[in-house]
Amino acid sequence: MDFAKHSSAQPPRPGDLLSTLSTPLPVIDEDVLASNIERVQSYMDSHGLAFRPHIKTHKIPSLARQQVEAGARGINCQKITEAEVFADAGFEDILITFNILGEQKLARLAALNERIADLKVVADSIVTVTGLAAYFTARKPLTVLVECDTGGGRCGVQTPDEAAALARGIVASRSLKFGGLMTYPKANTEAAVEHFFIATMAYLAVDGIDCAIRSNGGTPSLFNAHLVPTATEHRAGTYIYNDRSMVRAGHCALEDCAMHILATVVSRPTPERAILDAGSKALTSDLLGFGDYGLILEYPDARIVGLSEEHATVDLSRVDGIRPDIGERIRIVPNHTCVVSNLFDTMTFHREGVVTRVEAVAARGLVW
Amino acid sequence: MDFAKHSSAQPPRPGDLLSTLSTPLPVIDEDVLASNIERVQSYMDSHGLAFRPHIKTHKIPSLARQQVEAGARGINCQKITEAEVFADAGFEDILITFNILGEQKLARLAALNERIADLKVVADSIVTVTGLAAYFTARKPLTVLVECDTGGGRCGVQTPDEAAALARGIVASRSLKFGGLMTYPKANTEAAVEHFFIATMAYLAVDGIDCAIRSNGGTPSLFNAHLVPTATEHRAGTYIYNDRSMVRAGHCALEDCAMHILATVVSRPTPERAILDAGSKALTSDLLGFGDYGLILEYPDARIVGLSEEHATVDLSRVDGIRPDIGERIRIVPNHTCVVSNLFDTMTFHREGVVTRVEAVAARGLVW
Repeated sequence: MDFAKHSSAQPPRPGDLLSTLSTPLPVIDEDVLASNIERVQSYMDSHGLAFRPHIKTHKIPSLARQQVEAGARGINCQKITEAEVFADAGFEDILITFNILGEQKLARLAALNERIADLKVVADSIVTVTGLAAYFTARKPLTVLVECDTGGGRCGVQTPDEAAALARGIVASRSLKFGGLMTYPKANTEAAVEHFFIATMAYLAVDGIDCAIRSNGGTPSLFNAHLVPTATEHRAGTYIYNDRSMVRAGHCALEDCAMHILATVVSRPTPERAILDAGSKALTSDLLGFGDYGLILEYPDARIVGLSEEHATVDLSRVDGIRPDIGERIRIVPNHTCVVSNLFDTMTFHREGVVTRVEAVAARGLVW
Repeated sequence: MDFAKHSSAQPPRPGDLLSTLSTPLPVIDEDVLASNIERVQSYMDSHGLAFRPHIKTHKIPSLARQQVEAGARGINCQKITEAEVFADAGFEDILITFNILGEQKLARLAALNERIADLKVVADSIVTVTGLAAYFTARKPLTVLVECDTGGGRCGVQTPDEAAALARGIVASRSLKFGGLMTYPKANTEAAVEHFFIATMAYLAVDGIDCAIRSNGGTPSLFNAHLVPTATEHRAGTYIYNDRSMVRAGHCALEDCAMHILATVVSRPTPERAILDAGSKALTSDLLGFGDYGLILEYPDARIVGLSEEHATVDLSRVDGIRPDIGERIRIVPNHTCVVSNLFDTMTFHREGVVTRVEAVAARGLVW
């Protein structure tokens, strides 16, 4: 990848000290990253659950390679553009957890199916299934899982009865292969997921339909994945970097957050106000139920109360003692790491403050 | 620019119909764009105000060229990376409205000052001024404006007295040139801006210090810019595309919103719920005080009540009559257009639904 869009830009290089790099800059701690990968894979291994990392969090093929080398089986994408980038990088087992519609996307999905071993998608309606069926053939059918709304309130058929009916529709198509069930549940609703899977499988068993994959997902209550014994695999993305919302969910400790956004105090207009050079174009406006836009590690009592595009407004009124000076560099743990990744063309990795590598966020920004 | 990160991706081409393009896709109506540029420039011209468009909204040099050809004098950037891209594209009069700190940035600012005719920055503290002073020389001094907090509550000196003191500090440096005053005010506070400018100029007049530029800014109450007669120029970014928040502010009508995000209904899990393929990675989570995440033109009574990364959850309960079908394409007017631009590598332009051009969003995603 050509990093230089303009003459004077120089990306960070291995060996650079983070303390010398321009801010705002998201950085990833290699040791925390490796530990997060290992910890979750070990848990999955110990419970005999296949683990399928969601690459939406990082969008970087070399990170997915680390996840697979640790033991993950296949990857999870949310968009065809992501899947194409990861197919180019050699990944052969890709599940796209999205209802794919429209001629352009279907044609590309068919092309993708020709060049990787094991492409799978989901569907929650007969409209989606019918659209898919028209673009594949019995020679290499596309594997389709039925997406189930087990309480998450997003996509998905609403009942096991509907799930079974849609599965029958997939089975009836010679160009599609019924792969099983998929859900993206609310956190801590393992019993509801288990019930939905069991009930649907019971309906399908009557017709002799095998339901090979039962795919559960999510990071927040990931360490309860074993409470869905019917599941055959679990999908999760955020766990690789972690963020403030995962600390709040109890998934990890603050020290397990691999991503920090480096920022600089650029103004101190009043004793109680500091302005940082990281705004909504570095942190995003994702609140995720927090009352502010990220946690400043050096000043945990400070609150990022407002963002404009390139500035954060910080309320220091609760900071006793020393308050930050103009020019001081601070680190922010973002509310939501996946959307931060999506803002930057590159991601900088480090070990103990020394840059180890800079990776292109290869699957971001693609719209066609 | 090489648009293709992977083999099967094909960007839209001139002549393509929007109705055939993959979603989610932000698109810009050429005629509305041209009308927005003309309308604001005419207003500025009629009041003898210099107009300096902020390129943060589009980050596309050819659009800034349109703005300058319409009569704008110079451009406004928020980051050095933006200024570098626009300098490469031939722009010679650039104001960066940011307190620039840190060795790397200062060195690059000095390099930029060598290669364009008229670079200007702002400062609101003696720390920023001292940092700048060390990187420039009397041979080609850097022009520095004092940033004033006239009630906006972000950066800026707090009083005219402080503004004058900082201006004296700039004047005292042989490597800097005092350029004047700059503010980014709250909307509809023209009297406060005028007062701040007049009072500061009065203090400086005592010392015989000329205050050549008085730079006011913002789109929401842009058409009140003439109520600050002391201002010599006005800066604005959002007006070129406009968005839902500018309609609410009374700056424009819904028909003046040049940006729509094309999206597709991918799921209808219940009678009252639709799911779109545009999530926080297409719309951003910017609420800007709205209770939902954008306006669906075809279903104005529908509400985008939730976003995940690639899905929008739409509440249809208030939609009487026909509700959207799976596969139906809709158009969203975003709450905030500037942050949407920042998510995409390219922007697609059209006239009456036919693609006219695809431009690289050249100044986005740069972190060093």
